[in-house]
Amino acid sequence: MNKQGDHFLGVDVGGTHLKIGVVNREGEVLHFFKEDTMPYRDHPDGFNICFLKVIGKYLQQYPQIKNVGIGLPGLISKDRTTPLEIPAIPNLNNFNLKGELEKLYPEVKFCLENDASAAALGELKFGSSKASPNFLFITMGTGIGSATVLDGKIFKGGRGNAMEMGHMLSRGNEGLEKLIGRNGILRIMERMIHAYPEKAGDLIDQELGTHLLVDTAKEGNAVSLMVFEEAGRIIGEAIVSTVRILDVNEIYFGGGISAGLEFMMPAIEKTVRQYLTKYYLHDIKMSKATLENNAGTLGAAALCFTD
Amino acid sequence: MNKQGDHFLGVDVGGTHLKIGVVNREGEVLHFFKEDTMPYRDHPDGFNICFLKVIGKYLQQYPQIKNVGIGLPGLISKDRTTPLEIPAIPNLNNFNLKGELEKLYPEVKFCLENDASAAALGELKFGSSKASPNFLFITMGTGIGSATVLDGKIFKGGRGNAMEMGHMLSRGNEGLEKLIGRNGILRIMERMIHAYPEKAGDLIDQELGTHLLVDTAKEGNAVSLMVFEEAGRIIGEAIVSTVRILDVNEIYFGGGISAGLEFMMPAIEKTVRQYLTKYYLHDIKMSKATLENNAGTLGAAALCFTD
Repeated sequence: MNKQGDHFLGVDVGGTHLKIGVVNREGEVLHFFKEDTMPYRDHPDGFNICFLKVIGKYLQQYPQIKNVGIGLPGLISKDRTTPLEIPAIPNLNNFNLKGELEKLYPEVKFCLENDASAAALGELKFGSSKASPNFLFITMGTGIGSATVLDGKIFKGGRGNAMEMGHMLSRGNEGLEKLIGRNGILRIMERMIHAYPEKAGDLIDQELGTHLLVDTAKEGNAVSLMVFEEAGRIIGEAIVSTVRILDVNEIYFGGGISAGLEFMMPAIEKTVRQYLTKYYLHDIKMSKATLENNAGTLGAAALCFTD
Repeated sequence: MNKQGDHFLGVDVGGTHLKIGVVNREGEVLHFFKEDTMPYRDHPDGFNICFLKVIGKYLQQYPQIKNVGIGLPGLISKDRTTPLEIPAIPNLNNFNLKGELEKLYPEVKFCLENDASAAALGELKFGSSKASPNFLFITMGTGIGSATVLDGKIFKGGRGNAMEMGHMLSRGNEGLEKLIGRNGILRIMERMIHAYPEKAGDLIDQELGTHLLVDTAKEGNAVSLMVFEEAGRIIGEAIVSTVRILDVNEIYFGGGISAGLEFMMPAIEKTVRQYLTKYYLHDIKMSKATLENNAGTLGAAALCFTD
């Protein structure tokens, strides 16, 4: 028999779906649901009312839940009440989501956070990586997300939305995400296949994708390995600058493209060793995040933890 | 008649000198001294004992002083007791300066900080710029120093030494300081004079220096203006990446080269407007820091302020 407050709802908001987990304090996902939010957009009640109602459905189903964490893909207000710029769901922009939820469900506590920050917190609370209270977290997927945990807390920066590493300027002043987000990686693949067709092997005449890239790299495809090497150098350079700004030297990598981290790591290592000094390097730690597909819901659930 | 605790000692530690100010709570420098520290290096007592003793000399002279702030040019421990990497004075590395001072002068409170961070705090407490509690501070001089104030406090980062902007990677992966520290600026001058000798005017056959650069820019020298434009673009790019990491959009510029800020500002403005979005730009503020030569001592003095 569980005490009230032992279970948490973690809501990972994506562009087309909500991933919802009922999570206990040990980080086990006891129940998992997926809600398609596309119909909300044309619903007579409007997207936001539908969003409020679906949360209510789960609160009714699990009345022992008194804490709901919500991870959002974009910029939110520093007081963590209101989404500001959610490119995938502009309906939510400037809607006081926390306030409206609290009005409807006054006995429940709601915690909003950026999704990469939530995932970083999830790694801290539940990951098997034994993260320290100070680390940088980078998700490499469709986009490049990032977060920093300082003294065990999510780093918000001056106005609430620190850690937009994906928009740091990189080579030739492209944003990092443009260079090594999913589409950027595919552009590097195309370029490398074109430059070294004799080494491209299984990549020739395939529809390019990041799964194919990881799979062929595992088989030793020379072009795929070069693609990861190039991506590793670019992310390594961004890490150097970010470490100089934040003075963290523990770094975790999540997201789909991190499935190929082992192939990027030699170039990342080489780059950071080229540019960082002993102060940073002597106990630097860089490794894969460990929550994989559950990072979003577990991180969201962890937002409302109090000790 | 002043109360005990109304006066503060601010000590700005440089490679060859200490600048020492007796400062009141309003930020007036009541007395100013300069101590040559070069003789300490060969002194039989060693540099560090000499350093402790010279502080004692001022404490004896001003017995009403119960708070001493010390700004150091380098990396210090997160607990602010011990200099770690002070390139200009390696003698201090790993010497528990705060602990030793407190042993010798137990009735006095000592506060250590990085010098750029101290200068930023000085701008917050005493500057006429009306800085908000969240801002980025950049000193452009021999080197490029930087600091961030978040919620009114110096941002220390994960391990204590955030804000080494001078070592962010910039174009072609040079460190920013290498590109636009004093020597970098002089290299840009040389290159521009060589490229546009017909426009170099008063710069021809002169010993190049940053004062000459500022003076000739004020006279409208086309090459000097191009040098500032180039430096403005480069610092602007670094600001874009730093703002994305820290989410601050209030920025102050100090240091000798900021005497030419007006000539850099168009390129800085253009660069940030090119790469930052509305969220950052709609209330961005960038201007010159206001404490000029007193920034070091006033900032150091402000370290020990308690309200």
